[in-house]
Amino acid sequence: MDAEIRVPEVELIALAERFLRSHGLNAAQTGSLARILVAAQRDGSLSHGLQRLPGTRDTMGHPDFNRQADPQPESLSPAVTRIDAQYGFSCLAAERGIPQLIEKARQVGIGLLAVNNGFHSTALWPMVERIAEAGLVGLSMNPTHAWVTPFGGTKGVLGTNPIAFAWPRGEKPPYVFDFATTAASRADIAMHRASGKEIPDHWGLDASGNRTTDPAEVLAGAMLPFGGHKGSALATMIELMGGPLIGDRTSRQSQDFDKGANAAPCHGELLLAFSPELAGGLVAFERAESVFKGFADQNVRLPGDRRYRTREQSAREGIAVSVALLERIRSLIP
Amino acid sequence: MDAEIRVPEVELIALAERFLRSHGLNAAQTGSLARILVAAQRDGSLSHGLQRLPGTRDTMGHPDFNRQADPQPESLSPAVTRIDAQYGFSCLAAERGIPQLIEKARQVGIGLLAVNNGFHSTALWPMVERIAEAGLVGLSMNPTHAWVTPFGGTKGVLGTNPIAFAWPRGEKPPYVFDFATTAASRADIAMHRASGKEIPDHWGLDASGNRTTDPAEVLAGAMLPFGGHKGSALATMIELMGGPLIGDRTSRQSQDFDKGANAAPCHGELLLAFSPELAGGLVAFERAESVFKGFADQNVRLPGDRRYRTREQSAREGIAVSVALLERIRSLIP
Repeated sequence: MDAEIRVPEVELIALAERFLRSHGLNAAQTGSLARILVAAQRDGSLSHGLQRLPGTRDTMGHPDFNRQADPQPESLSPAVTRIDAQYGFSCLAAERGIPQLIEKARQVGIGLLAVNNGFHSTALWPMVERIAEAGLVGLSMNPTHAWVTPFGGTKGVLGTNPIAFAWPRGEKPPYVFDFATTAASRADIAMHRASGKEIPDHWGLDASGNRTTDPAEVLAGAMLPFGGHKGSALATMIELMGGPLIGDRTSRQSQDFDKGANAAPCHGELLLAFSPELAGGLVAFERAESVFKGFADQNVRLPGDRRYRTREQSAREGIAVSVALLERIRSLIP
Repeated sequence: MDAEIRVPEVELIALAERFLRSHGLNAAQTGSLARILVAAQRDGSLSHGLQRLPGTRDTMGHPDFNRQADPQPESLSPAVTRIDAQYGFSCLAAERGIPQLIEKARQVGIGLLAVNNGFHSTALWPMVERIAEAGLVGLSMNPTHAWVTPFGGTKGVLGTNPIAFAWPRGEKPPYVFDFATTAASRADIAMHRASGKEIPDHWGLDASGNRTTDPAEVLAGAMLPFGGHKGSALATMIELMGGPLIGDRTSRQSQDFDKGANAAPCHGELLLAFSPELAGGLVAFERAESVFKGFADQNVRLPGDRRYRTREQSAREGIAVSVALLERIRSLIP
C-alpha cells in the first residue's frame, strides 16, 4: 500500500492546473479537467482521479489534439444542443453545453446535448450529477475503443461503453450510477496483469476467442460485456447513441483515430436531461423517494453512497492522495 | 409438444377480435390489442402472443378497468406528449400517441411520450419498431410489479422492468432488442415450476432471502436482476423513468393497485424517439451499419434476427399456433 497524505482540495486543483498549464493546455480546458480529476479523487473514485494526470501528456501529444480548444454551444432546436470539443478534452465542452441543456429541459421537458470530437478521460458521473443538481434527471453515455466483443462473438467491436444516470433528491445527494457495460473494467484487468493475478473466466477472451483467466490474453484479445446477451445489447445501444446518433465516431473509428498515440479515446458523448416536473408533476419526487425507501428498509446501498461518504470525509480532512503519485506529478512539471 | 397448425394472420386477428369483443371491450382497444398479440405470435414471441388472450379476462375484470377507454394525446410542449390510457389496455394509448411522438422528434430532434394509467400486457418491441419504421431511434421502458429485489437486498421493490430499443436500417429490418432486467423472466420461472424442474440459483431468492433452485420459492420470494449491481442499477433507472418521471405508479404501487384481481400490471410507459438526421446527419446511418457489419463479420446474431426469420416464415406459410390454445380461446367466447 502506498503512503497517503491528505491535501486540501484547492491545493490539489492548483497542482493539477500547474501540471496541465506547464504542458501548454489553455486556461479553460485546464480549469475544467483539473476540477473533474480532483472531484473523482475527492470521492475516492481513484481510477478516474489524479492518476490520470500523467497520461494526459499522451493525449496532448496526439497529432490532432488541440490545446487551444474553445468550444461554444450551438442550439439546433428547442430541445437539442450540439457542442464541438474541437479535439480538446471533452469535459470542457460538456460543462459549457450543460447550462443550455438544462435550460432546454426546463423549457420543453427534455433536452439532448451532443458533445462531439472530444478526448475523453474523465468519469461521466460528474456531468449527470450536475444535471441532477439543477433538479433534472440526467443520463449520459459514450463509446470508447473497440476492445469489447458482442455476446456470441470473439473480436472487439464495441467500446467499454459507460452509462451514467442521476435522479435529483432535493436536499439529499442525487441517486447516481455510472458503470462500464463490460464484465470488468480495463483498468482492473490491467491491475491483475501487473500483480500477476488470474482473472475470472467471464471477463474476456484470448485472441483465438476462448475464455481465459490470463489478464494479458484478454488485453490482447477481447473483453466481454457484463450480463450476457442483455449487457451486450445495452452496450450496442450505447455505441449507437453515443456515436452514430450524434454524428460521431464508433469505437472502432475512435480506436483507428488514435494512430498509436495511446491517447484517451476521442469520440462523442450524449447527455440527456429530463424534467420530472413537466411530465410527472410534483408527485414524481415523492414516488421516487418511496423506491429509495424500499432500498433503505432492507439496508441496500445506493450506487453513489460510498462516493458521498468519501466526499464528506475529504471535506473534513482533506483529499487522500498517494505520496508517490504526488511526487510523480510534481516531477513531470518542467 | 402441442400440435400446431398454421393460420393466416387475418384469421387470427379476427379470432382475437371476436374474443375481446365478446368480453365487452370497445372496438378501438380490441383492434389494437388483437393486432399486437398476433404480431408477437407471428414473430414466434410466444410468451407475448395469443397465450395472453385468456388472461385478458382477469385484466378486464379488474374493478377499475375501462372497457370504453378512448385515449387522446395531449401535447405538453414541442417535445413532450402525454396520453392517458384511461385504465384500458396501454397498447391503444401508445399507438395513438406515437404519431405525435414521431412528429415532435422530427421537428425538434427528440420526443418523449408518456403513457399513463394503462394495463400493460404486450411486448415493448412492436412500439419501438414502429418508431424505427419512421426512420427514428426508439427507446421504451416501464415498471411492472415489485417482484424483483435490488442487488444486495432480499425483498421485492423493482419490477421486471423491460427496456426496448430500435435503430432504423433503411431497407433492412431495424435493429431491435427488448428484454426484462431480471436474470430470467417470470414466465420462465413459472414454466419450470409447472414442469417440476429446478432453476439456476442466480434467478432468485426464497422468502428468507437465500438463493434457491426451487422455482416456487422464487415466485413466493424475490426475483434477481440480471448482471449483478449493474443490472440492478439499470432496473432502478427504468423504475424511476417509467414511473415517477412521468407521474405514474412505481412497481409497488402498481402491485398494490391490483387488489388481488391478477390483472396485467397497471402503470406508465415511457417512449422516446430520437432523430439521427437532426443530431448526427446522414453519416449516422452509415456509421451504425459499420457496427452491424462488425457483428456480421463474426457471425454474431442481432437480437431481432430470430423474430424476423419467423416473421418471414409466417408470411409465407401462415402463423404457427397451438391447436389446444386455439380451442381454449374459442371455448372462452360466450
